Amino acid sequence: MYFLSWLSQLCRGLSRPIGRTAQPTWGSFSRSLALSSQRRIPEFNSFVARTNTCGELRSSHLGQEVTLCGWIQYRRQNIFLVLRDCHGLVQVVIPQDETAASVKKILCEAPLESVVQVSGTVISRPPGQENAKMPTGEIEIKVKTAELLNSCKKLPFEIKDFVKKTEALRLQYRYLDLRSFQMQYNLRLRSQVVMKMREYLCNLHGFVDIETPTLFKRTPGGAKEFLVPSREPGKFYSLPQSPQQFKQLLMVGGLDRYFQVARCYRDEGSRPDRQPEFTQIVDISNVFKHTEVRFLQDALSKPQGAVKAMCVREGANYLKKKDIESIRKFAADHFKEEVLPVFLKNKENWNSPVAKFILEKQRLELIRLMEIQEDDVVLLTAGEHKKACSLLGKLRLACADILEMNGMVLRDPALFSFLWVVDFPLFLPKEDNPLELESAHHPFTAPHPGDIHLLYTEPEKVRSQHYDLVLNGSEIGGGSIRIHDAELQHYILATLLKEDVKLLSHLLQALDYGAPPHGGIALGLDRLMCLITGAASIRDVIAFPKSFRGHDLMSNAPDSVSPQELKPYHIQVSWPADSEAERSSLNHSHHPES
Amino acid sequence: MYFLSWLSQLCRGLSRPIGRTAQPTWGSFSRSLALSSQRRIPEFNSFVARTNTCGELRSSHLGQEVTLCGWIQYRRQNIFLVLRDCHGLVQVVIPQDETAASVKKILCEAPLESVVQVSGTVISRPPGQENAKMPTGEIEIKVKTAELLNSCKKLPFEIKDFVKKTEALRLQYRYLDLRSFQMQYNLRLRSQVVMKMREYLCNLHGFVDIETPTLFKRTPGGAKEFLVPSREPGKFYSLPQSPQQFKQLLMVGGLDRYFQVARCYRDEGSRPDRQPEFTQIVDISNVFKHTEVRFLQDALSKPQGAVKAMCVREGANYLKKKDIESIRKFAADHFKEEVLPVFLKNKENWNSPVAKFILEKQRLELIRLMEIQEDDVVLLTAGEHKKACSLLGKLRLACADILEMNGMVLRDPALFSFLWVVDFPLFLPKEDNPLELESAHHPFTAPHPGDIHLLYTEPEKVRSQHYDLVLNGSEIGGGSIRIHDAELQHYILATLLKEDVKLLSHLLQALDYGAPPHGGIALGLDRLMCLITGAASIRDVIAFPKSFRGHDLMSNAPDSVSPQELKPYHIQVSWPADSEAERSSLNHSHHPES
Repeated sequence: MYFLSWLSQLCRGLSRPIGRTAQPTWGSFSRSLALSSQRRIPEFNSFVARTNTCGELRSSHLGQEVTLCGWIQYRRQNIFLVLRDCHGLVQVVIPQDETAASVKKILCEAPLESVVQVSGTVISRPPGQENAKMPTGEIEIKVKTAELLNSCKKLPFEIKDFVKKTEALRLQYRYLDLRSFQMQYNLRLRSQVVMKMREYLCNLHGFVDIETPTLFKRTPGGAKEFLVPSREPGKFYSLPQSPQQFKQLLMVGGLDRYFQVARCYRDEGSRPDRQPEFTQIVDISNVFKHTEVRFLQDALSKPQGAVKAMCVREGANYLKKKDIESIRKFAADHFKEEVLPVFLKNKENWNSPVAKFILEKQRLELIRLMEIQEDDVVLLTAGEHKKACSLLGKLRLACADILEMNGMVLRDPALFSFLWVVDFPLFLPKEDNPLELESAHHPFTAPHPGDIHLLYTEPEKVRSQHYDLVLNGSEIGGGSIRIHDAELQHYILATLLKEDVKLLSHLLQALDYGAPPHGGIALGLDRLMCLITGAASIRDVIAFPKSFRGHDLMSNAPDSVSPQELKPYHIQVSWPADSEAERSSLNHSHHPES
Repeated sequence: MYFLSWLSQLCRGLSRPIGRTAQPTWGSFSRSLALSSQRRIPEFNSFVARTNTCGELRSSHLGQEVTLCGWIQYRRQNIFLVLRDCHGLVQVVIPQDETAASVKKILCEAPLESVVQVSGTVISRPPGQENAKMPTGEIEIKVKTAELLNSCKKLPFEIKDFVKKTEALRLQYRYLDLRSFQMQYNLRLRSQVVMKMREYLCNLHGFVDIETPTLFKRTPGGAKEFLVPSREPGKFYSLPQSPQQFKQLLMVGGLDRYFQVARCYRDEGSRPDRQPEFTQIVDISNVFKHTEVRFLQDALSKPQGAVKAMCVREGANYLKKKDIESIRKFAADHFKEEVLPVFLKNKENWNSPVAKFILEKQRLELIRLMEIQEDDVVLLTAGEHKKACSLLGKLRLACADILEMNGMVLRDPALFSFLWVVDFPLFLPKEDNPLELESAHHPFTAPHPGDIHLLYTEPEKVRSQHYDLVLNGSEIGGGSIRIHDAELQHYILATLLKEDVKLLSHLLQALDYGAPPHGGIALGLDRLMCLITGAASIRDVIAFPKSFRGHDLMSNAPDSVSPQELKPYHIQVSWPADSEAERSSLNHSHHPES
């Protein structure tokens, strides 16, 4: 498919010098980014003192008088100083003669990470002192004048990628963390990836980039939408989870081929991730129909209960006891579900806490179904069907991480494997009331053309025209063909989902005025960038991320607001009983004017 | 200056076929947009039935079998039908023979603006029936099959640019309004302008595009910031008015050459526009030091009072009585200030309600100061200095609009005249307490290097390093060199402005860790697009604008929210006494579940 081949090309085109093991260096960094030391920043203007960037100087610049600005990265014996800007590093020779005492004083006394401006001549390094690993390694700067532009206080941590620091500290001092090679690399690469996407969409395919509002009206079932009080009593805007409705309205408006790099606001609160993960598993419920193992019994006695298993090939050789413990803990933390590891050390002797409860017949059936071989480890899990699938999917990725850390070669980091997931159900039974239906994705997804007749008889059997895109096992995007028929949309909203259609009257009305058939897809840019850069967390590909509890650890947002400031919005805080004391202390300490 | 020459090039490069007088046509529309009928949409994929767009067909396509999709724009005598998509218009010949009765029925009965798919052959129009004004005017489609994809209800207004409709109706049915030539043109041009800006910044100059958070912490004096309640009692995020602080933190983080197409959230409430407008006026306070005219007396008796005048050349020939009335009304509506028109029909006879109160000496002095000539109209205004300046600036633009409507040629619509405004004061006396100072722009603007010593003695005299950019009389952008010294920033915030520095401790701290000298500029994209397209309102260059009271007339946002939905955010509505009745009715009618 065209879209996929482009995305795949885009990913392949990007170098991936930074894996989980490799440390980035300015060399690979600057080689891999198109806009880097190879290219000069053109046209320094009259307001900027610097003539060159630190990273661009080469032997071809020998003899030139240059002015550079940058941070002091490193100093050696008060003789050499390495200056850094976003284009790279360059070595500066601190003058040692009496007449340059003031220059020496500035360059030797300024703390690391201070900002300095130096002027001098590009000279070649003495023979044997060239540094082949450094793009500017053939030259150094003989300094004549220096100016301290801003001094740096004692740092809370060293700005070196190999110095470990807690994520909380990194987020608190994000502006320092951003100076690291890795963060510079991730954010600059992200900028270029997005630019390539834009060029593809706008310049090659005539897409039109349109910004849609972020202050909107609450959507039905929009429990994850942030509210924004307005100055009209009792009236609220909502920050939409996605430009879902606007996308459709643009199609009705004839703005064919729309795209947007959109913000999505999702107030996750404490709701778990609803997205079922794709996974390869084997359902072994039938094997354990009659079992004495309690937790398998329990699971199978429930309506949607299932026992699922996954086979980790050669797991016995690679998974240590503590790895199994961490897998159990992972399962408990994320799903409150038990995992039963079964070690098959040899065919007769199953090394497992429940081995004795597994009947010989069950054992043989399991070996046959799962094609278990010696030294494999089998992970059993039991519970509600969807949850068990989701858990095993996550366990599969966790196991792969552990196996790779233990030296097994499983995944080629340069390989980008895409997968489309299709034929999702249009509806799912509600978790709290399985007799009622809810949308598997959202109520605007069109039913599969082959299943439309089932909508009126067996809606739970209708497949949707939703599609998900998976890259290397992670979902990176999804989309759907939408309903363009107002009657069908009304039937699904009002009759099947029992939603208040008044909240969506504008959309239903729009469909009535010649809405064309339409569909689309949304990619999760954060997750895609994680896969491309090999970052462990989406926080490493976002400039100013929130902590997982939604806090900005740098500025301490969200923060208290005085009752006076709430007045124009006609709201007041409903304090839980036990925080009255805190409230009054806040009023006095944070807002002395109130 | 480099930036300006680029911006100027960018504006000149854009064709401006749509002025206040010219009606856009698909011809000029498609010629002026690069991605248009000249270029095919490449690679239609297997899911899309259409083989071509409506706008791309030419004589070179004669004989081809094509499938087109589009809206029915127009139908003539059940013989011809004009089909429209976003690439243009094409004429379709409805088959009249018996065998094609079902095709004829579909195409003749579908209401205008319905969506249809037709397949047929590209044929040449009979000699003499070619339409040179239509890019596809040499050909037409001989239809074989047709399918109605979606029928359109009776429209609330005709989708033709020359059909006048109220703005409220346009906003309510925005998805229909977006189908108009003008809106399609404005939004597609905007997309391309932004793309050109990105290519310039990213590809040519190595800028890095970084998204900054929109859920942040309230800034001091941020009375215009929307609040977003969090799930922690009493804690609120704030939607920042601009990425001001993040921009600076990115500079501290070494992300040199950052840019962003950013959302700015400004809850204007009822505060008037604080931005003083640039204007050429003449201060004539001294002329009227001793006057009998009451409103001039009143104004001059106040500390900042002034009398200002503007001369409209040949105004007596072009400004009609109702124009003067509308100017007065404009002044009253916007500034609660009076405007005194003085017509100078001939040198002896001043045609003005206050002519008799103006002394001969004052009249002569006024003529000399303002170089008044016969047939000029002088507009006098009096009031607080800044307000009077701002009013005359707006009046100047309003007069120009009126004069141009009355046939005077004043401004060349193809001309883009840029102007930098510099040397703003760093501080202004507070409106409600002139003894205290407030920032003229914001507290992070650096003082002019030549005035730093005055900060400690006469801060009100310090000029700032702020700059504004004006295009054709409208401010389109502004920026500043920022303070990079923590001590100076602390002095200005705490000592001069008396702000609570605790709210900004993260920024002050960041400046202490080697912040480089830095500055930037922000362009107002909406206003710039207005000037480029000649649109009367920024609402014509935004896909889904809010009304001036901040309402979304299409979806009816902001809207009521049930107390249940507010619970997770620990807030409740403080109902003003007189709306209790309304509240309870809302609870019952809108939220039957509550």
